[in-house]
Amino acid sequence: MTDSDLISQRKSKASAWFRELQTDMISRFEAIEDEAKAPLYTGAPGRFEKTDWTRGDGSEDLGGGTMAVMKGKVFEKVGVHYSQVYGTFSEAFQAQIPGADQSDGRFWASGISLIAHMTNPRVPAVHMNTRMLVTSESWFGGGGDLTPVLDYQREPDFPDTVDFHTAMKAACDRYDESWYPRMKEQCDTYFHLAHRDEPRGTGGIFYDRHNTGDWDADLAFTQDVGRQFAEIYPKLARRRMNEGWTAADRDEQLIRRGRYVEFNLLYDRGTTFGLKTGGNVTSILSSMPPVVKWP
Amino acid sequence: MTDSDLISQRKSKASAWFRELQTDMISRFEAIEDEAKAPLYTGAPGRFEKTDWTRGDGSEDLGGGTMAVMKGKVFEKVGVHYSQVYGTFSEAFQAQIPGADQSDGRFWASGISLIAHMTNPRVPAVHMNTRMLVTSESWFGGGGDLTPVLDYQREPDFPDTVDFHTAMKAACDRYDESWYPRMKEQCDTYFHLAHRDEPRGTGGIFYDRHNTGDWDADLAFTQDVGRQFAEIYPKLARRRMNEGWTAADRDEQLIRRGRYVEFNLLYDRGTTFGLKTGGNVTSILSSMPPVVKWP
Repeated sequence: MTDSDLISQRKSKASAWFRELQTDMISRFEAIEDEAKAPLYTGAPGRFEKTDWTRGDGSEDLGGGTMAVMKGKVFEKVGVHYSQVYGTFSEAFQAQIPGADQSDGRFWASGISLIAHMTNPRVPAVHMNTRMLVTSESWFGGGGDLTPVLDYQREPDFPDTVDFHTAMKAACDRYDESWYPRMKEQCDTYFHLAHRDEPRGTGGIFYDRHNTGDWDADLAFTQDVGRQFAEIYPKLARRRMNEGWTAADRDEQLIRRGRYVEFNLLYDRGTTFGLKTGGNVTSILSSMPPVVKWP
Repeated sequence: MTDSDLISQRKSKASAWFRELQTDMISRFEAIEDEAKAPLYTGAPGRFEKTDWTRGDGSEDLGGGTMAVMKGKVFEKVGVHYSQVYGTFSEAFQAQIPGADQSDGRFWASGISLIAHMTNPRVPAVHMNTRMLVTSESWFGGGGDLTPVLDYQREPDFPDTVDFHTAMKAACDRYDESWYPRMKEQCDTYFHLAHRDEPRGTGGIFYDRHNTGDWDADLAFTQDVGRQFAEIYPKLARRRMNEGWTAADRDEQLIRRGRYVEFNLLYDRGTTFGLKTGGNVTSILSSMPPVVKWP
C-alpha cells in the first residue's frame, strides 16, 4: 500500500467513526426523550432534525457535513454535528496550523461536535468534540467537558462531575496513565473565563495535536473518548432528569448560560475563528443556549 | 492662566457635563416609568439604583464612576453610567492611543454611557455614549444609535429612525453640515455584524478623535449630541410604549437581542478591551440584554 493509499484509508476510517458516533448519540438522546414523563415533561418526544451542508459556493468540492439539532423536552437544545472538510488554508492561516506550510496549505479535517443545553437545570450541560486533522502532518484532538449550571453541583466532588471524570480517565488510562492528569489540566486551562476568573464548568479532558506514532492506537483512543462519553452522559441525564426544579433553579441556569455565551464569543477559538473568517454561521452558533439571562 | 490650569478647567467642565447629563437622563427615564399604565405595565414604577465604584485596588487614586441601573416596567434594563478615570496606560496599550507615547502613557478620560433594553418590543433599544480623552492630545468621541428590534421597524424610512437621525443631524448641522453624513457612515461601519453581514440597528452618528481646534465648540457639540438624544429618545419611547405586543413580537425581540450580544462580545472595542484587560466586569456587562434567545 502506498503512503497516499494509507492516508486515504485512515481518513475514511476516522470519518466513518465520527459519522457512526453521530448516529449513535442521536439514537441515545432520542431514547431519553422517549422516557420523559409528565408532569415534568409534556408534549411529544423531541426528534433530531438533520441538515446537510456543503462548504463553499459549489464551484468546487470542499466537503461539508450534517448538522443534527433537536429541540426536545429533556434536551432544550442539542446539536450533534458531523463534518468532513478539505481544501486549502489561506496563507494567513497556514502559519497557525502545524504542517500546513509543508502541504501548500492543503488540509483535511473530520470530526464530531456535540453541545447539549438541558431543560432541567439539575441536568448539567455538556460539550464533546473530537476530530482528525491532516496537513503534511496528521493528528487527533478534542475532548469532553461538563457544565453543571447550579452552584451546588459545581463542586469537584459532586457525584456527576466525579463520574464524568472517571469515564474520561478510563478512556485515557487504557493507553497511558499520564494522559488523564495532563488532559484534565489542559481542559481546565482552556475552558476558563479570564475576565471573571472562573471556570466554565467542572472540566473533563482536552487534547490536541495527539500523535503518538501509532495511528491505530490514536484512533482507538479517540473512539474510546467517544464511547465513554456516550455511556456516561446519558447516565447522568437519566440520574437527574426526573428531579423537580424551582423557578430560582431555572433563573440560575439561564444566568449561568450567559457565561457560556461569554466564553464562546470571547474565547472559543473555533467559534471566533469560524465567525470572523466566513464560516457557516448557523452551524457555528447552533451551540448557543436557547434562552439566556443577564439580569 | 497656565496651560495646565486650562486643561484642568476643561476636564472639570467636561466631567461636570457628563455627570449632569447622567442626572438628567435618570430623571427623564424615571418620569417615563411613572407614566406606565396597566394593563400593559403593572407593579411599581422602576427607579435607578446607583453604585459608586473606584478603579484599582485602592492603593492609589485612579478615578472611578457611578453606575446607574434601572430594571423597570418600560425599561426592562437600562444603564446610565458616568465615569472619570485616569492613570497610566500599559506600554502595550500606549501604542494604540493617540498621544499616549508623548504623555508617558498618562491619560484622563471621562464620559457617559447609556444602553436601554425595553420591555415592549415596539420600543427600539438605544445606545448613547460620549466621552473626553486627554493624553498629550485631547479630543471628544461618541455618538448615539438606535436598534429597533422588530423587522418592520428596521427600515431606514420608519418614522422612529427618521426622527432619531433628524435629531442627531440637528446636533451636527449647527457646527458643520459635512459632519452628519460622515458621522452617520462611521456609525454604520462600526455597528455592523460582519459574520452575518447585517447592521446592528438603524444607525445614528459615531465620531472619534474629534478636535477642531476650538475646545469650547467641541464640548458644545458633544453637549448638543447629548441634549438632542435626551429629547428624541423619550419621545420615541412615549410614542410606542402604549402599543400592545404579541408573543411573536417578544420572541423576535429576544432573538434580535442575541445579535446585540454577538456584536458586543465579538466586535465592540470597549467591551472586548475592557474584559480582556481587567476592567470592571459588572459595569462593562451591565449593557447585556436581560433576556435573550438563540432558538
